[in-house]
Amino acid sequence: MNPMTKRRLVILAEGRLDLFSAKTAVSVIRYRKEEVVAVIDHVNAGKDLSSIIGVGKGIPIVSNVGETLKLKPTDLLIGIAPPGGMLPDEWRKHITDALRNKMNIISGLHLHLSDDSEFCKLAQDHQLKIWDVRIPPEDIPLGTGKAKETKTLRILTVGSDCNIGKMVTSIEITDAAKKRGVNACFVATGQTGIMIEGSGIAVDHVISDFISGAAEKLVLDRIQYKLLSIEGQGAIVHPAYSGVTLGLLHGSAPQGLILCHQPIRKTLRHFPNFPILPLSYLIELYEKLAQPIHPCKVLGISLNCFGMSDNDALQEIKKVEKETRLPATDPIKFGVDKFIDAIQSILP
Amino acid sequence: MNPMTKRRLVILAEGRLDLFSAKTAVSVIRYRKEEVVAVIDHVNAGKDLSSIIGVGKGIPIVSNVGETLKLKPTDLLIGIAPPGGMLPDEWRKHITDALRNKMNIISGLHLHLSDDSEFCKLAQDHQLKIWDVRIPPEDIPLGTGKAKETKTLRILTVGSDCNIGKMVTSIEITDAAKKRGVNACFVATGQTGIMIEGSGIAVDHVISDFISGAAEKLVLDRIQYKLLSIEGQGAIVHPAYSGVTLGLLHGSAPQGLILCHQPIRKTLRHFPNFPILPLSYLIELYEKLAQPIHPCKVLGISLNCFGMSDNDALQEIKKVEKETRLPATDPIKFGVDKFIDAIQSILP
Repeated sequence: MNPMTKRRLVILAEGRLDLFSAKTAVSVIRYRKEEVVAVIDHVNAGKDLSSIIGVGKGIPIVSNVGETLKLKPTDLLIGIAPPGGMLPDEWRKHITDALRNKMNIISGLHLHLSDDSEFCKLAQDHQLKIWDVRIPPEDIPLGTGKAKETKTLRILTVGSDCNIGKMVTSIEITDAAKKRGVNACFVATGQTGIMIEGSGIAVDHVISDFISGAAEKLVLDRIQYKLLSIEGQGAIVHPAYSGVTLGLLHGSAPQGLILCHQPIRKTLRHFPNFPILPLSYLIELYEKLAQPIHPCKVLGISLNCFGMSDNDALQEIKKVEKETRLPATDPIKFGVDKFIDAIQSILP
Repeated sequence: MNPMTKRRLVILAEGRLDLFSAKTAVSVIRYRKEEVVAVIDHVNAGKDLSSIIGVGKGIPIVSNVGETLKLKPTDLLIGIAPPGGMLPDEWRKHITDALRNKMNIISGLHLHLSDDSEFCKLAQDHQLKIWDVRIPPEDIPLGTGKAKETKTLRILTVGSDCNIGKMVTSIEITDAAKKRGVNACFVATGQTGIMIEGSGIAVDHVISDFISGAAEKLVLDRIQYKLLSIEGQGAIVHPAYSGVTLGLLHGSAPQGLILCHQPIRKTLRHFPNFPILPLSYLIELYEKLAQPIHPCKVLGISLNCFGMSDNDALQEIKKVEKETRLPATDPIKFGVDKFIDAIQSILP
């Protein structure tokens, strides 16, 4: 499968088409716009998509699956994360309509659509695939440390917190490297990244003994590339997710890290009692943890300056560069050329 | 359930009663000898148990379940880990015999005995429990950081590698603290520890998003104790298991760590390409990772001097104490009084 050239996606965002509820939809549209043929949301049907979510100019918003058929869709992608991860009743009809019209289903819900007997039967009858992207493959081995022996350059994004721009930074690095002619691959480790790339493993859904084995498998399956830009997860000091972060760090055995950070955030998201650690503390910690597996340095600081003016963002970048003596940028506002320079300087 | 006072265990070690294959049996006998009424191994039936595995003097070795019935057993505990974690055919009869004779089954095999239809039916018919200790409870929440708000003193064992004495050290600390009148509890996080204690969660079998949630639950469920001696897992720089180690560290939010180390070991077990890190490196790393969640120090070094003479072990202890300026001991050879002193000095 090369999903990059073959998928014609319809994104289901029924009743929740906004920047916050439809984060998955927004990311898929931002990075795979050429694959998206329509968005379903009866509330906003007929409106201009980009005026609602900032991306996707020209992609039609329609009310139901029937209206998308003339666009020859191949897959219905669930683009919204409902509270609790369950399936709202009103989406069932859209999914069965899609299956009846020969569309595969791509879902990142906690609830597995492939466990639903009605969906399963329809998929079987029409020889279609229901892809629950959170379900890890069954053949994940224990970690062995072998990723460090591969010749590909492995760059992992890490963070001062969760939801801070690791996926975006990893994709932007991949795209910018490709533009410079580097044979690069985005390695997805979370549900939205997997939907965008068409492959990957949701490492936070693996049995904990196998986190680093999953990361290692992602690397070993992609040694034909010169550069792997690996999506990080969690944060190294976090009350909930640090284990996933460290397993990913050791399993992927990166030579370089990009540290992602949001200047205006003072405490961990959803954890007001846990201050964000200083960048210097985090740089030392990440390097000290990574080094014994493979020599590894933080190569740059990716700043998420969402909501700041360009001028304020530039001031912040200057301040961080002075403080850390590392290149810093906001990937969305100013691109990642600085990171590619740093990465190319250590390309084998 | 208070398994400490009610269980009368028969340990199945059929055909593999030696120090290496029967590690679970050896540990259960070492720490819960008063609960063990017999061991099954037809090869060594009638022999002196302690001459074979060094512990368990006086416990009879018999050939089958029938011979144990006069001892009024309540549970059959699988005391051996067969290669691959599967169930050897010749054990099936012992297990069905036990169930027919009203004994519960306690198993740490990878394969879940509670999934076996024959065992299940027998258990149901006789109202018995098949306890697969590796299966985590279903109600594990995400980590919230709440363990740090409890008033109990939380001491976690950590290591320079796996299989280095973390469980033994945690149990010895619990027992020594109890002898001094401290209301202490051993918190089991691996299969053998769970079998010994009769409760716990195998944290390496939890979905990786929930490692620290599992550790936190173990703490929050035991706040009636003054001291929790928490069994560590893995090692903080390890190609396979570091994620579990860190999730456990952050979820349990310890105030003190005991670092376990084997002086003669130069590389990670099964990983000859990964040298064991210097103690100073590990102490700094563990403290730097733990501190931001809750103030935390390494309080002592637990040395596994298995195979060394007492004199060599004492020399090593002196060397390590000079090097780290922390109390060191070998718990099996010389007890853990030094650790209890250090722990009591920070008891609230």
